Amino acid sequence: MNYKLNNIPERPVKPRQSGLTMVMDKGLSLRQVEDFIDIAGVHTDIVKLGWATSYVTPKLKEKLALYRSAGIPTYFGGTLFEAFAIRNQFDDYRRVLEEFGMEYAEVSDGSMDIEHDEKCEFIRKLAEQVTVISEVGSKDAAKIFAPYKWIALMKAEIEAGSWKVIAEAREGGNVGIYRGTGEVREGLVDEILTQIPEETIIWEAPQKEQQVWFIKLIGTNVNLGNIAPAEVIPLETIRLGLRGDTFDYFLNQVK
Amino acid sequence: MNYKLNNIPERPVKPRQSGLTMVMDKGLSLRQVEDFIDIAGVHTDIVKLGWATSYVTPKLKEKLALYRSAGIPTYFGGTLFEAFAIRNQFDDYRRVLEEFGMEYAEVSDGSMDIEHDEKCEFIRKLAEQVTVISEVGSKDAAKIFAPYKWIALMKAEIEAGSWKVIAEAREGGNVGIYRGTGEVREGLVDEILTQIPEETIIWEAPQKEQQVWFIKLIGTNVNLGNIAPAEVIPLETIRLGLRGDTFDYFLNQVK
Amino acid sequence: MNYKLNNIPERPVKPRQSGLTMVMDKGLSLRQVEDFIDIAGVHTDIVKLGWATSYVTPKLKEKLALYRSAGIPTYFGGTLFEAFAIRNQFDDYRRVLEEFGMEYAEVSDGSMDIEHDEKCEFIRKLAEQVTVISEVGSKDAAKIFAPYKWIALMKAEIEAGSWKVIAEAREGGNVGIYRGTGEVREGLVDEILTQIPEETIIWEAPQKEQQVWFIKLIGTNVNLGNIAPAEVIPLETIRLGLRGDTFDYFLNQVK
Repeated sequence: MNYKLNNIPERPVKPRQSGLTMVMDKGLSLRQVEDFIDIAGVHTDIVKLGWATSYVTPKLKEKLALYRSAGIPTYFGGTLFEAFAIRNQFDDYRRVLEEFGMEYAEVSDGSMDIEHDEKCEFIRKLAEQVTVISEVGSKDAAKIFAPYKWIALMKAEIEAGSWKVIAEAREGGNVGIYRGTGEVREGLVDEILTQIPEETIIWEAPQKEQQVWFIKLIGTNVNLGNIAPAEVIPLETIRLGLRGDTFDYFLNQVK
Repeated sequence: MNYKLNNIPERPVKPRQSGLTMVMDKGLSLRQVEDFIDIAGVHTDIVKLGWATSYVTPKLKEKLALYRSAGIPTYFGGTLFEAFAIRNQFDDYRRVLEEFGMEYAEVSDGSMDIEHDEKCEFIRKLAEQVTVISEVGSKDAAKIFAPYKWIALMKAEIEAGSWKVIAEAREGGNVGIYRGTGEVREGLVDEILTQIPEETIIWEAPQKEQQVWFIKLIGTNVNLGNIAPAEVIPLETIRLGLRGDTFDYFLNQVK
Repeated sequence: MNYKLNNIPERPVKPRQSGLTMVMDKGLSLRQVEDFIDIAGVHTDIVKLGWATSYVTPKLKEKLALYRSAGIPTYFGGTLFEAFAIRNQFDDYRRVLEEFGMEYAEVSDGSMDIEHDEKCEFIRKLAEQVTVISEVGSKDAAKIFAPYKWIALMKAEIEAGSWKVIAEAREGGNVGIYRGTGEVREGLVDEILTQIPEETIIWEAPQKEQQVWFIKLIGTNVNLGNIAPAEVIPLETIRLGLRGDTFDYFLNQVK
């Protein structure tokens, strides 16, 4: 840090299991990736190439190599897995992961209907090849399900081999664990936390108010995802109680 | 593309007459233009330097040269034409187009009141010098006109020599063919499409929901405009059914 | 300017006392700072490193040097002052300003409660070391105070040594002089202007509609702040009557 301020909350050193910041790259150029790493790489744990953007991204291998050389793991968004799975091209997907040297993969069912047993089977198979992150929640705002269902799905997916489970929000932060307005479904989150260890969950939280809400609930080192590249520095200050939104909160803890 | 997925809708090769993606540059630096071309140039058909931003843009000639060397045509936003026209400086405008080597120009009346005959006369004159794109619709949210009027204006402008007509939305996507909320005036669009060939229209659609709506209505290869530079990769995935929003839609077509 | 348009409002040359554009950098990389300077440096008067982002910014000295070499002064956001002050580390703050060669500093009380006499005492002390900008208004949307109070605070701070007073809005533009919707508290602004010289105030105005509102009220050369780096070119066109929003307004003045 650039100067000494007393009573700043501690952040674990990377690589870490909690306090993760997962960033969504939805189409950065190579030089923009370099710029991102230069300013925010030290605060970023993992980068998702959003949904199936990798399909239309020029110089994909060079992009992946840039992140790799900065020590930041990457993975393709779950929609890409779904695009292969629904076309019965799962074996092709495994080969793609291998060809691009991916060490992580996301399994989701946000855009397609699939039996949960089958989803867990995909998790099990991919977990032999890579570290699996799986996502719970639909991208369809109309498909809402009860807290006990969220918990059952998360438990089964962790058991099947998921390293972390992601709570869905999309880039917009207006589905899954949020209402259409972006407001957190607080009861849902509270109930999930009674059953699932919080460090096992990555909460998608693209909007500032959502990040603030989770940091106030769980603490500095909550895992947050779908952070826009330009929002990593702001998020880090919110975690540290150095933005108006959490200024009081941390000071209260300190006293 | 970086890997093989079955049943992906086809996109025509550039230069193309439909499936156009028109991007709005409202103030990229030279290196940002290079970055944009690097990641999104292959998916971009034409770039508009938004409204009269060209007036205050440093190194304008270098910027235009960068786009030119990437094979991407550019044009100045219609407001610049209006700024010259309302000052009785139309001849100066023609000289500016020549001086900067412009091959396209936009004629609009979104900010000024002008007889439609006179607007068409400007189109006719400019069409002798450049390829003309003309825009229908006011930037004033209060100035709403009926579908038959939109159709009459578009027809007259195409007859006067417009290569394409643009349906107004502004950078925000909240006027013209949209309500203040960004919602599409569906009846208006439907009625326009009964009379004007869809490939002759560029629909301004800066918001994701607007892009999705037009792609679902018209198809992968609808012409869309006012796309932000960072949204070209996302848009391309929506066109291809590779984002949650159109995942089902294209799959249904395939079956 | 790139071509000659008649009847364009005049902008004073930098360094200027009115018509200031204050930009918020909330986490640009070094190369992004260079890009910003390349496209918008000539239109930018001063840059704020938003709130306490400087704490977690890598290569901070290099960043400050880049702005300095372009002749653009910088300062740390007021929240950083508050973070030091509330920890009883004010002397450390003065040393930080010295160590980083800062020529400006902001004093605010947007996140903490402090007696106004004490705030003015901080202004007085810092004014011996740097040029002080002080901010009036809370970051807490619930803390609203009456116009006469705004005026009294501003007067006292100017008397204590503030070069300019800033009217609070945050990055979002939804507190202080604005309602939660972003709408201007018009009566408040009108009343402030009866007592405080407008060139002494910098109005935070991150949203386009807010910029337009102030330019229509006060004129081309109103001081505006919290402008996002990518919005400097658009703002300059609004000041000059070259965007739809002010197209009529300036034309009316000219006639």
